Amino acid sequence: MLIRLGYDLQFEIGQTVPIVTLLSVHPSRRHDLQGPDRVIAEPAVPATEYTDSFGNICTRLLAPPGTIRLTNSTVIQDSGLLDPASPGAREVPVEELPTETLRFLMASRFCEVDLLSPVAVELFGALPRGWSRVAAICEWVHSKVTFSYPHARPTRTALDVFTERIGVCRDFQHLAITLCRCLNIPARYATGYLGDIGVPLSDTAMDFSAWFEVFLEDRWWTFDARHNRARIGRVLIATGLDATDVAITTSFGNARLSHFEVVTDEIG
Amino acid sequence: MLIRLGYDLQFEIGQTVPIVTLLSVHPSRRHDLQGPDRVIAEPAVPATEYTDSFGNICTRLLAPPGTIRLTNSTVIQDSGLLDPASPGAREVPVEELPTETLRFLMASRFCEVDLLSPVAVELFGALPRGWSRVAAICEWVHSKVTFSYPHARPTRTALDVFTERIGVCRDFQHLAITLCRCLNIPARYATGYLGDIGVPLSDTAMDFSAWFEVFLEDRWWTFDARHNRARIGRVLIATGLDATDVAITTSFGNARLSHFEVVTDEIG
Amino acid sequence: MLIRLGYDLQFEIGQTVPIVTLLSVHPSRRHDLQGPDRVIAEPAVPATEYTDSFGNICTRLLAPPGTIRLTNSTVIQDSGLLDPASPGAREVPVEELPTETLRFLMASRFCEVDLLSPVAVELFGALPRGWSRVAAICEWVHSKVTFSYPHARPTRTALDVFTERIGVCRDFQHLAITLCRCLNIPARYATGYLGDIGVPLSDTAMDFSAWFEVFLEDRWWTFDARHNRARIGRVLIATGLDATDVAITTSFGNARLSHFEVVTDEIG
Amino acid sequence: MLIRLGYDLQFEIGQTVPIVTLLSVHPSRRHDLQGPDRVIAEPAVPATEYTDSFGNICTRLLAPPGTIRLTNSTVIQDSGLLDPASPGAREVPVEELPTETLRFLMASRFCEVDLLSPVAVELFGALPRGWSRVAAICEWVHSKVTFSYPHARPTRTALDVFTERIGVCRDFQHLAITLCRCLNIPARYATGYLGDIGVPLSDTAMDFSAWFEVFLEDRWWTFDARHNRARIGRVLIATGLDATDVAITTSFGNARLSHFEVVTDEIG
Repeated sequence: MLIRLGYDLQFEIGQTVPIVTLLSVHPSRRHDLQGPDRVIAEPAVPATEYTDSFGNICTRLLAPPGTIRLTNSTVIQDSGLLDPASPGAREVPVEELPTETLRFLMASRFCEVDLLSPVAVELFGALPRGWSRVAAICEWVHSKVTFSYPHARPTRTALDVFTERIGVCRDFQHLAITLCRCLNIPARYATGYLGDIGVPLSDTAMDFSAWFEVFLEDRWWTFDARHNRARIGRVLIATGLDATDVAITTSFGNARLSHFEVVTDEIG
Repeated sequence: MLIRLGYDLQFEIGQTVPIVTLLSVHPSRRHDLQGPDRVIAEPAVPATEYTDSFGNICTRLLAPPGTIRLTNSTVIQDSGLLDPASPGAREVPVEELPTETLRFLMASRFCEVDLLSPVAVELFGALPRGWSRVAAICEWVHSKVTFSYPHARPTRTALDVFTERIGVCRDFQHLAITLCRCLNIPARYATGYLGDIGVPLSDTAMDFSAWFEVFLEDRWWTFDARHNRARIGRVLIATGLDATDVAITTSFGNARLSHFEVVTDEIG
Repeated sequence: MLIRLGYDLQFEIGQTVPIVTLLSVHPSRRHDLQGPDRVIAEPAVPATEYTDSFGNICTRLLAPPGTIRLTNSTVIQDSGLLDPASPGAREVPVEELPTETLRFLMASRFCEVDLLSPVAVELFGALPRGWSRVAAICEWVHSKVTFSYPHARPTRTALDVFTERIGVCRDFQHLAITLCRCLNIPARYATGYLGDIGVPLSDTAMDFSAWFEVFLEDRWWTFDARHNRARIGRVLIATGLDATDVAITTSFGNARLSHFEVVTDEIG
Repeated sequence: MLIRLGYDLQFEIGQTVPIVTLLSVHPSRRHDLQGPDRVIAEPAVPATEYTDSFGNICTRLLAPPGTIRLTNSTVIQDSGLLDPASPGAREVPVEELPTETLRFLMASRFCEVDLLSPVAVELFGALPRGWSRVAAICEWVHSKVTFSYPHARPTRTALDVFTERIGVCRDFQHLAITLCRCLNIPARYATGYLGDIGVPLSDTAMDFSAWFEVFLEDRWWTFDARHNRARIGRVLIATGLDATDVAITTSFGNARLSHFEVVTDEIG
């Protein structure tokens, strides 16, 4: 399956602002790209790519006063298959976890592992370990939290989601990630493209999406507490501890988003 | 100057517990070591060293039921000089910061950059940029927060320190780090040995200490909002986003600390 | 001046729900009413009036399944004058405060006096005491917090307002009230009618409004950190510690607000 | 049974400080007093009694610089019976609750009813209503929270207790009170004398104690999530929304507690 990917972001800049973007397809999917995947800036300011500590491709640029537009359009090859599942995948005891997964057991800005551990143990501590326990966490979060765009809030943490029971994509994933980590299951936040492929068309504008990954058996697996179902055509951009690490754009100064468009269409 | 370094930690373990320790002198100081610096475990369980994403040396081991003791004693060469200072060091504009420093501008578990930014700007936004601004932050935190061991709390965040105005080492640094990041100054948490060298002997038991590092001009500099003065003989163990990343020991299960002793003595 | 007051609230009720309303003009203004001021319920369920511990008139009723409509329309005589001001009014030392004002020095759900005291002292502790200090608090809150309906959130506390710097009417007042109490100035939350009298017509739908009252010299005075200017035609409904105490309606079960209309028009 | 009651509190005062005390036995027990029950201040500053909005007897005084001592010793007649229990007592539907109980359904500084409602419903929503449900809440709090004097913290809220699972008397009661209110059961905080009568002598110094009261059937009943057992000889001092309202002493300025002694002894 071929999927067209793209975006058109525009910002109004008062004073020159450094911006870091996470808009490139993740290196693990680079071989699937059918064309270049580079942030095009108008005006054509110099942009530098670098790889962050998680292995994501970031682009830095310095936005001058006025309007700056960041666009791209490319095509990626996709298996067209649902997210891989392996219901028999086991949880790995901490002492056997690969060292690079250990950081994904820790608390982070939006994931208060220390504060939610008693709750996690009470709700899920007695369940059989493995894939089904992570699935139970997703099911719980999905059924308890109400999705609401107007209730988006950039400072909402997992504990806030647990008490308020409302939120957007990222909030669902933050709570699920935190509950996993509380049980010593490595979990990391993921962002990327997720189009309406194989599901009814959504009536809201296309956006980037958030999901999360869990380390079971011997690899990372995709989970999604927001949709709570396997999906076709996720294209990973970045992973990190939580939304802090993988914001699509981080502006170090005032940058007003004036236009936002994302394309994720199956084209053949 | 030679400094004897060492520790004797004992834990009571009920059920087998994986433990990760950050007890090795930081690689940047390894060339100063006069002897081996390796965690000695009794009983002699297998221990594996690895380097985390910050460049710290971690040791993993699996503690069996019973008492486990982690000890070490080594000697390090030290300049005997006060923490380097460079009052003329300038703040580096974000667009010129080395990419590896950018992660230290972000919010983390104990450093709510998003929540304290208005406060940081009100208090320090109008000050001249550079070393003196960081010094002003340290001075402010040092004068506003009261040190109190009995008020230690593992879940206290920078915002909590800001409102409660009480805490231990780590709390002072968390607030200062957060205020720096709010102003786009990279700041990272540091732990290590800090003996009473060149200062009156403290009447409390020797402990590991926390301070923080700030990126100015072209390198990281040591700051310490707890003591708010240059010190002699800091021996760095680890740096990270905040205390989450550099806990001396992280136990993935129940491990009761029954003995704790740290040695940091000038020996010649 | 005569002001027409009224409201038309409709709720969709699934299962029978007890509701408490605070919709009657405050007893202190009852003598100005030109007609009856009683909640009219359709269907005509029994409603009981009582006076709460703050002296407000509450109405209790039991809403049956279906739609319930609460309406009223009445007329009140008003001086047509701006909120009384007395720039020379002094702060009353705690030991001279009337005992009934002491409860308005305490922390409450949305006013964390304990957490914001250091900030209040730093910002306003050195100012001359009296009316001008309260005015300075209003001015500060008004200038630092951005008004935004979409960012309304029922759980936002004064500390949240202080960190997020965004909110609606009640948020402005909660922060100002808390800062006053931190300085031992009795402050209470107020709700009522506030039409666009003497000011440009607002382009948003008429709503009930929140302001606050401060005890200075020998009486309570009206302040408003949201508008930060004296206004004409405030008609007080209720006062309390914070928004918790004076919600227009409190439903003990599910009641979906389906229609909301408030009238506050000068009619002669 | 006769119980000797008394206290000896001493404060070091720098600058004149107004103090409000809640040290008098509650009016509901005044007829049991065998002697006067009035705060004796040394030096003998004027003290004024008043009744707060909850019906508690408060004493106001102005403490001059130096040491101020507040003492009293009196005797009270007590039934010598365990706290009354009525396992068949039913929960009263909100619409039938006496109006004066309604304020005890609301959120307050330390009781975030709004934030803990989903949890309360999940844990206790399906239980049979009435006395046994309140008992289940006490049992749950008692078994989940660990008592620890060193972990006392004046700003800990019910939500903090829920996440931290540690605290002192007041913390247990705050969480239990909040869970009750979440289920529309009126609950109020209580402080008073509670000696070691009918239980093994405690090895900690005698202190005032906190418990809580719940409105069931037609009256308020004593519950105690800290001890979770019926006790003999509670002598009520005050009730309120939470600890904010019934602090033994509230100082409006700096007053350092230098001596603290409470007597609660069965004397015949």
